[in-house]
Amino acid sequence: MPKALITTVPFADKDSLPLHLLEKAGVEYLINPIGRKLKEDELAEMISDFDVLIAGTEPITEKVMERAKNLKLISRVGIGLDSVDLLTAEKLGIYVSYTPDAPAPAVAELTIGMMLTLLRHVHVASSQMHQGLWHRYFGRRISEITIGVIGAGRIGRGVIDRLSSFKPHKVLVNDINNCCEFSSMSWVQSATKEAIYSEADLISLHVPLTAQTKDMIRFEQLKTMKEDAIIINTSRGGIINELDLAKVLNEGHLTAAAVDVFEKEPYDGGLASIDRCLLTSHMGSMSVDCRTRMEIEATEEAVRFLTGKPLQGLVPQEEYDVQRQGL
Amino acid sequence: MPKALITTVPFADKDSLPLHLLEKAGVEYLINPIGRKLKEDELAEMISDFDVLIAGTEPITEKVMERAKNLKLISRVGIGLDSVDLLTAEKLGIYVSYTPDAPAPAVAELTIGMMLTLLRHVHVASSQMHQGLWHRYFGRRISEITIGVIGAGRIGRGVIDRLSSFKPHKVLVNDINNCCEFSSMSWVQSATKEAIYSEADLISLHVPLTAQTKDMIRFEQLKTMKEDAIIINTSRGGIINELDLAKVLNEGHLTAAAVDVFEKEPYDGGLASIDRCLLTSHMGSMSVDCRTRMEIEATEEAVRFLTGKPLQGLVPQEEYDVQRQGL
Repeated sequence: MPKALITTVPFADKDSLPLHLLEKAGVEYLINPIGRKLKEDELAEMISDFDVLIAGTEPITEKVMERAKNLKLISRVGIGLDSVDLLTAEKLGIYVSYTPDAPAPAVAELTIGMMLTLLRHVHVASSQMHQGLWHRYFGRRISEITIGVIGAGRIGRGVIDRLSSFKPHKVLVNDINNCCEFSSMSWVQSATKEAIYSEADLISLHVPLTAQTKDMIRFEQLKTMKEDAIIINTSRGGIINELDLAKVLNEGHLTAAAVDVFEKEPYDGGLASIDRCLLTSHMGSMSVDCRTRMEIEATEEAVRFLTGKPLQGLVPQEEYDVQRQGL
Repeated sequence: MPKALITTVPFADKDSLPLHLLEKAGVEYLINPIGRKLKEDELAEMISDFDVLIAGTEPITEKVMERAKNLKLISRVGIGLDSVDLLTAEKLGIYVSYTPDAPAPAVAELTIGMMLTLLRHVHVASSQMHQGLWHRYFGRRISEITIGVIGAGRIGRGVIDRLSSFKPHKVLVNDINNCCEFSSMSWVQSATKEAIYSEADLISLHVPLTAQTKDMIRFEQLKTMKEDAIIINTSRGGIINELDLAKVLNEGHLTAAAVDVFEKEPYDGGLASIDRCLLTSHMGSMSVDCRTRMEIEATEEAVRFLTGKPLQGLVPQEEYDVQRQGL
């Protein structure tokens, strides 16, 4: 009987279809018994026996894969591949699939919500109201400011699409492929990252974590941003250096920040003591519809593999090339 | 030298043009020295000497106007008129003007931000992250739910317009004038208030406070809403009964609520102890652009009056009729 290890949690919490799919296909499965993102050693210890890994963002390293004698497919529930050592997987003949389209709408909506919250200081006002303090904060509207979007893939484009009904003043977009096609939106302009850092009133990050983007925004970049700028990271931890972000915020630089993703999750660092930093627990993809779609797609891929059908979600060669070039 | 009392605070905080306009016209002015919304007695005591009142939402009652021997114009910074006894003003020959268009975009954006925040439990997650707790909440997207909008005036329409880029599933609209024209939006449908209460996953209020809307949503109406419904009030305090809202939330009914407006402001009631209730301090109109526009428009009206030019922002007769019929 083939065996699948499901490490991402929660899993099948809102819709049990993924479990039914596995059962129907005669697959034995184990859901992460620790109930949180696994550490490398925990995963290495757990994985020895399994044929397929239905994976979250835990580290799937060389050490893990060397212990996974039966592993033939890593099926990622989600889009990011920074947690998977693709080159080792390739060397060991382990297939890697993912679900790149499913999370995008949920991440884009969370991001717009954070933009509107931070622009109006809602998080600060609400926290104060709960402490019995009443202060009416001034804020800004989407149409008053310049927004910088770094990364115009599925999620960055989803953010820009949703901004359209707010009649933006100007959106500066930077993408590694320089392929931004926004001709129907006169308010979108291409820009360098440096121009975005210095000109944007609100900066939102939608890039994958790679050798090129790791620590992309450090103290130096943060300090070139406007005194009253806002920064939002719903992409991956490590793209903004967390210690540097906490440092500039503590110095009084930047009006507000929102961070959904962290270098180490669960997060327990210094941003938690900064009131104007809105924090969420890697919830970008956590809408019922997107999460369900991700889980079903990743499970269907596992079932396809275990029942000898062709894979449909294989990670494209470019992703291996990104890792070959760095990280 | 004509004298203007400015009661709304903050005033001219981001743009000093309103004060320059008054000075240029030779108007002597006093800005509310108490620095918060005035109570009836405070205003009655302060107003005796002034020709014009540039007003916030403090109670401009018969008692106040009887003390205001020189008062000839109330120029409201904003749209709501529930705080002004229009019939007494009419009887005493005091003109009343307002700025109904200026706040709408800011209120609509705050409302959308609250919708996205509540749908994803961002306020709860952030509060927990700041306490060192990590829990990944499931949420819903705009396209997954039925949204109910009660009141389709300037603000309600602004909300619906902005929802369009989120590809809503269904928006049920109720308006007293039954005049909703949303033919370009196939996802908008007219509905009774009762249908909205029972069918909507998220209900947002955009009605004025009148005899008809006072306590419109009480315990009974709240209990007919779905167990996991969300309710947002950025219109006026008193439209949702605050005690009843706190009661049902404390009983575990409703997933979340957001309240920007209160019967008594500053607010110090029981909603402040409910974590899933997002609270803001009457900040709907508080974007720099909208607030500035409101202050300038209300000040220009005052200057027009004091320099013998025709008024442009007079409150229409319908508003007097609303008060004649009740409240």
